[in-house]
Amino acid sequence: MTETPRIAGVLSPVVTPFGADLVPDPERFVRHCRWLLSQNVGLAVFGTNSEANSLSVEEKIELLDRLVAAGLDPARMMPGTGCCALPDSVRLTAHAMKLGCGGVLMLPPFYYKGVSDDGLFRSFAEVIERVGEARLRVYLYHIPPVAHVPITTGLVERLLAAYPTQIAGMKDSGGDWSNTQAFLDAFAKSGFDVFAGSETFLLQNMRHGGAGCISATANVHPAPIARLYDTWRAAGADAQQTRLDVIRGVFQKFPMIPALKAAIAHHGRDAGWATVRPPLVALTPAHARALVAELDQTQFAMPGLVGR
Amino acid sequence: MTETPRIAGVLSPVVTPFGADLVPDPERFVRHCRWLLSQNVGLAVFGTNSEANSLSVEEKIELLDRLVAAGLDPARMMPGTGCCALPDSVRLTAHAMKLGCGGVLMLPPFYYKGVSDDGLFRSFAEVIERVGEARLRVYLYHIPPVAHVPITTGLVERLLAAYPTQIAGMKDSGGDWSNTQAFLDAFAKSGFDVFAGSETFLLQNMRHGGAGCISATANVHPAPIARLYDTWRAAGADAQQTRLDVIRGVFQKFPMIPALKAAIAHHGRDAGWATVRPPLVALTPAHARALVAELDQTQFAMPGLVGR
Repeated sequence: MTETPRIAGVLSPVVTPFGADLVPDPERFVRHCRWLLSQNVGLAVFGTNSEANSLSVEEKIELLDRLVAAGLDPARMMPGTGCCALPDSVRLTAHAMKLGCGGVLMLPPFYYKGVSDDGLFRSFAEVIERVGEARLRVYLYHIPPVAHVPITTGLVERLLAAYPTQIAGMKDSGGDWSNTQAFLDAFAKSGFDVFAGSETFLLQNMRHGGAGCISATANVHPAPIARLYDTWRAAGADAQQTRLDVIRGVFQKFPMIPALKAAIAHHGRDAGWATVRPPLVALTPAHARALVAELDQTQFAMPGLVGR
Repeated sequence: MTETPRIAGVLSPVVTPFGADLVPDPERFVRHCRWLLSQNVGLAVFGTNSEANSLSVEEKIELLDRLVAAGLDPARMMPGTGCCALPDSVRLTAHAMKLGCGGVLMLPPFYYKGVSDDGLFRSFAEVIERVGEARLRVYLYHIPPVAHVPITTGLVERLLAAYPTQIAGMKDSGGDWSNTQAFLDAFAKSGFDVFAGSETFLLQNMRHGGAGCISATANVHPAPIARLYDTWRAAGADAQQTRLDVIRGVFQKFPMIPALKAAIAHHGRDAGWATVRPPLVALTPAHARALVAELDQTQFAMPGLVGR
């Protein structure tokens, strides 16, 4: 029996489409995921940019089932499965395992703040023990600006010692390169895969032993980001990084999730994509036009999006 | 048809007992709730101190069903029903309505930070519209130290204008009296019931037109807190408040939720009560002994807890 290869490269925290009734739209979701795979980008569905915590567990299970039923490769999927409630995290993680997902991206329980590493260790350990699968690959999700519950090097050390098979890596969305570097320095050599939380740090991450990136803008600019991953050792990598930074800079002028959806709505000629679930709010028409106009000035395009 | 009277007075965010397997224990839960009612304290089950966000929606529904099946009065219940995901909030709120609960305490969606009042308005509005019950009484839950998503006076003004029947009040757990006062000044006269988030502010809240308090320590010190509510206009109210502050002060030296459970375990002679779900951690035996010893020095007691 061969082991599934580790996930590496560029993944998209796939934005979740909703109907006018705010119900997730599996058909648009499958189409977008298929397009992302065609652009050489993996599927970190149910991330922060997916409005995952605005979805019920049942909705996430249904969407994941639809992707697999549509023939998309589960080995390319790293669904977010970390919830506030232990049974929810266990249920989602076990379901991802049943479907053969390549890994899971796990937030710490994020309601209580100032919790101890003891408590967080126990949270992750209980999920791993209850799922009880040697195939499980857990990527820890560090996103202090949103979750306000950080993943520390001390916690990773304890988890790696206890679960060397299941603890596979992390996503660092802290926006602080020195933190990413600290994790790379401490754990990359022991096979712990560090994904940068945006393409801003992709080249730097690869040069320091990282595994790739999981980035919001991989929803809209997937192929160029994936190309930098594939060619980061080649001449011209810095110029590629600069070009990626320009595009990301435009999106960062707007609230990120509504902006991603507005770009897909415009370039995919599918206005319904602009819908977000509360508490998020869609871009105003004026802001959506400003985003499109700024992107046009950079020759931004989403090839293959229409008719996918 | 007579209208259910508004909830007022002292409520306990009821701590949730777990078995050694970390599964909620409905029998201990019913017993504790029955004792609290006997002490003249209402049931704000599924609050922050209930580890509510560490419970799945199904677990909460099951526990609420068990309370009602045991004959406890749903008019005295104000379950927490605000989740990150709209369908979860709708499902829990609709269930609470079906059971005849006197109100619901609603957190804003708390994963995304820095969301707009527009987005929060839409979050609460969607729940109210989808539940579609004129009987619904929503208490907004302001707890910025934990949720990091505040309830503003501007938001309350908009919600009251749109849903004057359903928007019934709030719980202010910000720990800042000037904020509570601002809400009392702005809305108390129009029948918006402000509950202080702890008994620390109970007397002050009553003197300024508030409706009572919903306090962690009402789990362990219910009757004396309820007595201050009943007699706040009488001579000696300030002395009562001082005594309440002494007891609360002891609990505040320890992590609150594990300390509440340790006190119930000790005074109820039921060691199993000390269990918490991750990411929380139970008090160490040494800390539990220190808590009990400090409480003993204040002549703290929990009459009627044993044999309930």
